[in-house]
Amino acid sequence: MKAWRLENFGLDNLKQVEVEKPKIEANQILIKVNSVSLNYRDTAIVDGVYTPDLLEFPFIPVSDASGEVVEVGSDVSKFKKGDRVTSHMFTKWLEGKPKSDEQLHALGATVDGGLSEYMVLNEDATVFTPDILSDIQASTLPVAAFVVWFSLVEYGSIKAGDRVLVQGTGGVSIFAIQIASALGAEVIATSSSDEKLEKAKALGASKVINYKTHPDWENEVQKLTNGNGVEHIVEVVGGSSIAKSIEALAYQGNIYVIGFLENMVAEVNLFSLLAKQAKIHGVNVGHHRAFEDFTRALDQLNIEPVIDTIYSFDQAKEAYKHQAKGAFGKIVVDFNK
Amino acid sequence: MKAWRLENFGLDNLKQVEVEKPKIEANQILIKVNSVSLNYRDTAIVDGVYTPDLLEFPFIPVSDASGEVVEVGSDVSKFKKGDRVTSHMFTKWLEGKPKSDEQLHALGATVDGGLSEYMVLNEDATVFTPDILSDIQASTLPVAAFVVWFSLVEYGSIKAGDRVLVQGTGGVSIFAIQIASALGAEVIATSSSDEKLEKAKALGASKVINYKTHPDWENEVQKLTNGNGVEHIVEVVGGSSIAKSIEALAYQGNIYVIGFLENMVAEVNLFSLLAKQAKIHGVNVGHHRAFEDFTRALDQLNIEPVIDTIYSFDQAKEAYKHQAKGAFGKIVVDFNK
Amino acid sequence: MKAWRLENFGLDNLKQVEVEKPKIEANQILIKVNSVSLNYRDTAIVDGVYTPDLLEFPFIPVSDASGEVVEVGSDVSKFKKGDRVTSHMFTKWLEGKPKSDEQLHALGATVDGGLSEYMVLNEDATVFTPDILSDIQASTLPVAAFVVWFSLVEYGSIKAGDRVLVQGTGGVSIFAIQIASALGAEVIATSSSDEKLEKAKALGASKVINYKTHPDWENEVQKLTNGNGVEHIVEVVGGSSIAKSIEALAYQGNIYVIGFLENMVAEVNLFSLLAKQAKIHGVNVGHHRAFEDFTRALDQLNIEPVIDTIYSFDQAKEAYKHQAKGAFGKIVVDFNK
Amino acid sequence: MKAWRLENFGLDNLKQVEVEKPKIEANQILIKVNSVSLNYRDTAIVDGVYTPDLLEFPFIPVSDASGEVVEVGSDVSKFKKGDRVTSHMFTKWLEGKPKSDEQLHALGATVDGGLSEYMVLNEDATVFTPDILSDIQASTLPVAAFVVWFSLVEYGSIKAGDRVLVQGTGGVSIFAIQIASALGAEVIATSSSDEKLEKAKALGASKVINYKTHPDWENEVQKLTNGNGVEHIVEVVGGSSIAKSIEALAYQGNIYVIGFLENMVAEVNLFSLLAKQAKIHGVNVGHHRAFEDFTRALDQLNIEPVIDTIYSFDQAKEAYKHQAKGAFGKIVVDFNK
Repeated sequence: MKAWRLENFGLDNLKQVEVEKPKIEANQILIKVNSVSLNYRDTAIVDGVYTPDLLEFPFIPVSDASGEVVEVGSDVSKFKKGDRVTSHMFTKWLEGKPKSDEQLHALGATVDGGLSEYMVLNEDATVFTPDILSDIQASTLPVAAFVVWFSLVEYGSIKAGDRVLVQGTGGVSIFAIQIASALGAEVIATSSSDEKLEKAKALGASKVINYKTHPDWENEVQKLTNGNGVEHIVEVVGGSSIAKSIEALAYQGNIYVIGFLENMVAEVNLFSLLAKQAKIHGVNVGHHRAFEDFTRALDQLNIEPVIDTIYSFDQAKEAYKHQAKGAFGKIVVDFNK
Repeated sequence: MKAWRLENFGLDNLKQVEVEKPKIEANQILIKVNSVSLNYRDTAIVDGVYTPDLLEFPFIPVSDASGEVVEVGSDVSKFKKGDRVTSHMFTKWLEGKPKSDEQLHALGATVDGGLSEYMVLNEDATVFTPDILSDIQASTLPVAAFVVWFSLVEYGSIKAGDRVLVQGTGGVSIFAIQIASALGAEVIATSSSDEKLEKAKALGASKVINYKTHPDWENEVQKLTNGNGVEHIVEVVGGSSIAKSIEALAYQGNIYVIGFLENMVAEVNLFSLLAKQAKIHGVNVGHHRAFEDFTRALDQLNIEPVIDTIYSFDQAKEAYKHQAKGAFGKIVVDFNK
Repeated sequence: MKAWRLENFGLDNLKQVEVEKPKIEANQILIKVNSVSLNYRDTAIVDGVYTPDLLEFPFIPVSDASGEVVEVGSDVSKFKKGDRVTSHMFTKWLEGKPKSDEQLHALGATVDGGLSEYMVLNEDATVFTPDILSDIQASTLPVAAFVVWFSLVEYGSIKAGDRVLVQGTGGVSIFAIQIASALGAEVIATSSSDEKLEKAKALGASKVINYKTHPDWENEVQKLTNGNGVEHIVEVVGGSSIAKSIEALAYQGNIYVIGFLENMVAEVNLFSLLAKQAKIHGVNVGHHRAFEDFTRALDQLNIEPVIDTIYSFDQAKEAYKHQAKGAFGKIVVDFNK
Repeated sequence: MKAWRLENFGLDNLKQVEVEKPKIEANQILIKVNSVSLNYRDTAIVDGVYTPDLLEFPFIPVSDASGEVVEVGSDVSKFKKGDRVTSHMFTKWLEGKPKSDEQLHALGATVDGGLSEYMVLNEDATVFTPDILSDIQASTLPVAAFVVWFSLVEYGSIKAGDRVLVQGTGGVSIFAIQIASALGAEVIATSSSDEKLEKAKALGASKVINYKTHPDWENEVQKLTNGNGVEHIVEVVGGSSIAKSIEALAYQGNIYVIGFLENMVAEVNLFSLLAKQAKIHGVNVGHHRAFEDFTRALDQLNIEPVIDTIYSFDQAKEAYKHQAKGAFGKIVVDFNK
């Protein structure tokens, strides 16, 4: 079968090769992959900045994949040939707190990922693709969309009527706008571009702040919420942004640290933290049970993933380059294009 | 001012009288009432079957009221003249578990209710009326709608994608269909009337069961959920229905006992209960903090209260009679009609 | 190896036989069993009243076993030869809500149990035996003690200072007294025997009620708690007891239905249930993660399992007979006696 | 009556004066104070570093007080003359998340505190003193002990068997050792003094680390927990300590930021934070309902507050000076000395 393999760090070492179709064990399924999507994580892996010590070359990259079951192991009871399925990144993290080694098994990193014609998944590292989504759409879910659900639902126990601040309009943030508003929250979105803020409104944001014209956006948030602040902040910026995020919170509000575009080190004023009784959660995607919950919920919620550009299998490198530059929505590789 | 007062048990003893406009204390507000709605509870109070020992005649009945603030006490900081407000029934239950006497203070029972031109409310027994609702619509919320929110959100921590079974199409059940589906749940509704089931679908139910043609509706529920069962049941029937409800549940599913139309005594098979690991919750409306959450959420959710008939102030007795007969949706008394 | 096997319903069909030592799979361990304990469940299985339809004869009964690891499968990473381990009854229920078939795999029923010299366990159906307990003591934990922990900690989120009512002095109830008081709760115990109530006090009960002299024990409970009631009731009686239990509760208190000595059908007054906002939980032991939590906690808590009588392997039938009669504390079979 | 009043920032401006005995309102009680204890907060208020903008001179300082009820307002139902009571610092924060102004009403700061013969408390800013504690002991609870309970129980839902790291041996940390071990946790304590570590062991710590000889104490914690890390860290150091605390955590472990002895600004490595899925909670004491829970629990738990030195009323300034220098346990002012 055809596959892209990373043979060493650097995009030059991403090579299209012909390899043997993988074999499945009793509790596994074989997928014919139809679509994968890229995340910041995927470019960070290629660049050698994300868990480089754990990687063993060569391996097939990319964690997010959707496709069709073509073969099932003898112990598999949940799936059958022909089922439409989507991958779950942490292949051994089923539920609850991760146990010692459950975070070490990650698709597209320590376990072969989805950038190949066929892909092996553990039965319990797989979910049914939501009926209302195409494979192209569903392949955008496992990291960027699910991390938002896991933050808001599992950590934050979000309730309809809560207020959610979303920073910027990257892949995670767009999903945050869509998911939070579908869950009945009031969403405030920030961006440096009025044009993108208009799009954010169309996707569900009730209120928007241009942080270029309002560098003190934390005060704007307090104004827009009548001095209450927001219960939830999807934090993807890091660095000095966290200090402002604390100021924008409601009492006992939650900051979900998902990324750190600006700076990996944040200076946190502890007095502000405790005066606000703020909670900061480090979020690293989530477990299989919650991913099942999320994908099942999508059949009820009206969320259409925003896709920036679709590339063909042969254009995988172009897809990586686009992902590295940034996009409004997700970068997808459609194997049938 | 004009008021309806209950002078003894029985609807004949509901009398329209002229009384003095009430005076407020420092932490209270005076409301010009525009609309009230009736609940099963209101007819049960008149009939002497609901907490008759706690009542002292005469008193002004009806707990659910919406109107406009016309005067505020000296310590009131949250409301000002002209604000649109709605009443909260348990006037002293602010948050958490009820303390000893917090359940004894109930509007329209031990505390004068809303069936009069003016009404006194404690500042912290009042919420802002949602912007998107009229006073007529908002007056339907405090008991019938809120008890559903309190069950699903506070007790059940409902998540989008959960499955909810709603029995029948009374006032509480219709709100259950609307609220659960607005929260992203998949709703299964039951009724003995195909016509009402069609209406239930229009209001948000995904699936319906006619329990006349399917007296074993618990099996139908299992079929419609691929043998999973439902995570939540809004139980308003009681009696022998509870046994069937347990069978219709998913593992660790929740039954919220809100009413008991059929029979106040339920025979519960304990073996089924523990095999299913079921949870049965007795629900008695809810506390003020959650009612604030709910009414704030309504500005984000797209829920239009279903009103069966609107009566004028002078027609209050007709309204009570209609409520006693049953209705599809709520019975309202519009003071400006 | 020597084993007891149940060849059909009835204690006469419990036969000591010589069978082949079982073989393990890659994710399993082989245990040399040192001790097992009996539960109500074990006699109910023999009598054909507990899930008889699921059983396939012959099988090795008894779920609760402690022993030593003598062999580990190739994929096992958590245990090694020589480790002291204890069994977890629901061999596939790892965490969270049980999934469709996870309740079907139960040691001593659908899966061979511990009443044999050697026993096979899945790696993730096993816990380390607490250092401070002997194998004889540890073999009393998996059902009778753990179901109490699961009720109070997982369902009830018990806090130090809460009040817990424990009914009677059977195996589960004695553990309930010990565990609840070790967790900082105030325990009220009931019994028909003043002598047993004295023992209950010695085990941690703060207050006791003789229900023979106080058949209205629910009122006594309210008196002993200054009209507050108790937050938790470990309900093992069933039948008409549940109605009294509701009266003995604090607002939003919890009843954990674990057994039903008196009657499998309970008449529940729904008005009381909702006025008290009571929660009734059906409890069916618990999952592996919580059993790990519990056994780890035992190294900190000062709980010594109460053992009524210890039988030898050859006396297994006598042990069953004693269990059926009732005991103060646990009935154990010590394989080294 | 005699009182100490702070007339401006600086200990020189703490003056003993004769003032009128305060009058109570309908919902208040008058206390004859028997004992107060000092916290870091009290010296910080005098030094003008803790919420200086909110203070209005002169006022009576000190939040933690125990005494006897000598007069009750007309609406007071919970307390009567002669009851032994203890103060709750945030006088308006009753339960749940703090509302807008509930954090502005603090005893010994914006509301007159306990350093006077008589003191006024709102009925719902008061708890019963635990029977098993003297007034001197009970006066140590409201801030230093309660903040630990609120962190571990309310935020952290601590379970017996959890592992807790406690830094140092100041007033909060000693209570953390005692409370966590009384709740069944395994406690690891750190200090720069082997002598203090011995005392920590006597108070309940299972394991200890001298951070002078082990400046990489975070690695020691991982070793002592077999690479699991701790579920809870009571963080009172701040500054660079937080980075180490994250390394010492178990997956999804909690850091409760209660103080910042070293530095008010912490540099947090966001990659570590999210890889560990850590939760950082800013804690600012707690609400009245939880303080009631805590004080009720103390009747079951075996905790004897550690008191370093007891001063007389006239020696209040000496007490402040001692508090500023640091102590092993609490500094108390006994009004009857």
